[in-house]
This record gives sequence, structure tokens and C-alpha cells, in this order.
Amino acid sequence: MNTDIYWQAPSLNKGARALLKAQHPVCIWLTGLPSAGKTTLANELEVQLHGMGKHTYVLDGDNVRHGLNSDLGFTDDDRAENIRRVAHVAHLMVDAGLVVVVAFISPFRAERAYARSLFGPGEFYEVFVDTPLSECMRRDPKGLYAKALQGQLKNFTGLDGPYEAPELPEVHVMAGSTTPPEGAALILQKLGVGKAIRLLDIPT
Amino acid sequence: MNTDIYWQAPSLNKGARALLKAQHPVCIWLTGLPSAGKTTLANELEVQLHGMGKHTYVLDGDNVRHGLNSDLGFTDDDRAENIRRVAHVAHLMVDAGLVVVVAFISPFRAERAYARSLFGPGEFYEVFVDTPLSECMRRDPKGLYAKALQGQLKNFTGLDGPYEAPELPEVHVMAGSTTPPEGAALILQKLGVGKAIRLLDIPT
Repeated sequence: MNTDIYWQAPSLNKGARALLKAQHPVCIWLTGLPSAGKTTLANELEVQLHGMGKHTYVLDGDNVRHGLNSDLGFTDDDRAENIRRVAHVAHLMVDAGLVVVVAFISPFRAERAYARSLFGPGEFYEVFVDTPLSECMRRDPKGLYAKALQGQLKNFTGLDGPYEAPELPEVHVMAGSTTPPEGAALILQKLGVGKAIRLLDIPT
Repeated sequence: MNTDIYWQAPSLNKGARALLKAQHPVCIWLTGLPSAGKTTLANELEVQLHGMGKHTYVLDGDNVRHGLNSDLGFTDDDRAENIRRVAHVAHLMVDAGLVVVVAFISPFRAERAYARSLFGPGEFYEVFVDTPLSECMRRDPKGLYAKALQGQLKNFTGLDGPYEAPELPEVHVMAGSTTPPEGAALILQKLGVGKAIRLLDIPT
């Protein structure tokens, strides 16, 4: 027996996995200030997509910062590495056929551009979760702005840390004056999902 | 309008995603010497599972070393970090509801034990892809053993780098004397997949 012949197996590609899931895999990248509502919007999006039978996953600080990126802090270098890794994990998950929703502050244009560069045309949707700083500070569910104002957190995005707003995001959600369901609906509309759930269905 | 109320969205859990996919998400972790046939076996597994309608993904050097872990080399520290990150990505993908097949040399017991520690009971299957060193050296499809023997690669697992064989793997594939389809069938049998595709179906 020539085992060389046997030890060559076929392999699946993204298209085969997407077809099985009957969906077009994409990365929906939510960026915005702390407390802008990114995770809430991500969860709302996932629930709505799940209700349509779509296979989704949310990457956010809760499931990434405590595991994969638990070795990283909040220096500029560590923030960049944090986003680099998240971008690659999102890319692997899109390759796996999933609709991935990323919810990270991701304050720098360069790192968001890097994330976008990993994906093919029509696979990456940048969503600016645009909530006024005053509203973010009013919400402050984790008390982080309060801590930062007391000097306990340094390099805090929106205060002493910069936030570079997207110049041409695919979707702009005015999250200070819209509800999460409204914001999610807007994103799905831009994705072509809604009346006919078009984009996320593979043409048959 | 009190936006605090609206900005709380429900969230999905692993169970909901698994139910949608009608499968029990698991991590199948293949370990073995270079050229033992891990990636070939992983691809064969994925093709068989895909044929059963299961949603899978393979993590191996090709899609991880060139992206997420492109900053890592082959020192002991970098090898450990390589496996730590892969373990966390596999964990996120299992959380997303996928059947994840990991194909990495992962030479150290401690790092495989770390990977296992991230998962719940019945979620992690260690598979020893056990091919004799002489057969690995004979196959050597990428010419790596040849390079290592010429001194061009140092700390090469199986030669001057250690490989700690699993002591109690869930599955032991004698990959020097079985074909990939036979090896994949053995793994699926141990997983309870086969006649009735039991384990990977969610009880209804």
C-alpha cells in the first residue's frame, strides 16, 4: 500500500461551509467610544440574525480580553496587538462561514484599516456606533468614566486617549437617539438583510 | 425616553447556537510529530463531518501561523504562546457552536493540558496521531526533516526538540498503518458519531 496516496485528503473551503449554513459570511465591525452601546447593539444584532436562522458570533472584550488577550494591557502597543488578534480571529470565523460581530472601541483608523485589509470585497462592514461623549459619560454602566476622571485610569479613550472617528463607515448609527432594535435594523438594512434577507442568503 | 432600559439587549449562549446547528460543539485536538499526518487527518475529518451536515473548522499552521500568530517564532516561549492562542481561538469557536479540529504538533503535555482546561466535560478530545518517526522522516512532504538534519532548522520536534506523547488520549490513531479515512472513522466512532451520529446531535 502506498500511504502517500492515501495521506492526501480533500479539504473544504469557505464557500462549502457558507453553503451548508445558507449564508454569506461577513464581519460587522462596531467601533465607538466606551459606553457607546457597542456590545448591546452587537447582542441585539446577534439575536435578530439568530431569529432568521443565521449563524453568528459576537467578539467583544468579555470573551477576548479575559482569554486570548489576557496577556495584553492598555498601552498603545497592546491596544494595537489586541485589535490585530481580534481581526485575525474574526477573519478565521468568517472563513468558517459565520457572521461575526466585533464590538471593540478600536479607536485608531489604522488598526481598523488593517482589519478591513484581511477581508475580501463585501465581507467587512464598519459600523460607527456614534454616541455623544456626554451621553456615554452619563450612561457609564461600569463606572469607568468616573474612575478615569478621578485619575485612576489613564489613556482612557474619549478623555485623555484619542478616538479617531470613522470617515467613511458602511453604517453610521446615531446611538444616542436610537434604540438598539432600531440600530440593528439599520445595519441589517445596509447589509441587504430585511425584507428578503438577501445578502446573507447564498444565491441558489 | 429612558435609553438605559432600551440599551439592554438579550444575548445568545452556546446552547442556542448549537441548537440552531443541531450539533454538539467540540474541540478535536490532533497532536503528533511533524509529518505524522495531522492536517491530512483533520481535512478528512472535516470532509466526513461536513457530509453529515455538521459545521466544522480546521485550525492548523497554514491558517494560524501566517495570520494570528505571524509574530511568533519557534522558541519554547513562542511555541507555548502559539498553542495558548490556538486553544483560546478553538474555545471561542466551540462557544460559537462549531466542531473545531485543531492540528498542531503541540509537543508539550502542559500546553495540551492547558488547552483541555478551557473546555467543559465532553468538549475536548485529544487525538494522538501516532506515526513512527522513521515513517514521518520518510514522508517529509515539506522537506523539513531533511533541512533539520542538515542543521538548517533547530529545536525541530522529533529530532533535537522534544515530543511528549499523550499518556491518556481519548483516541490513539496508529497513523503509520491506517489510512486517513480509517483514522477519521475511528475518531468519529469514539465521539459517538457513526451509525446514529449520536454525540454531535443535540437531543431533542
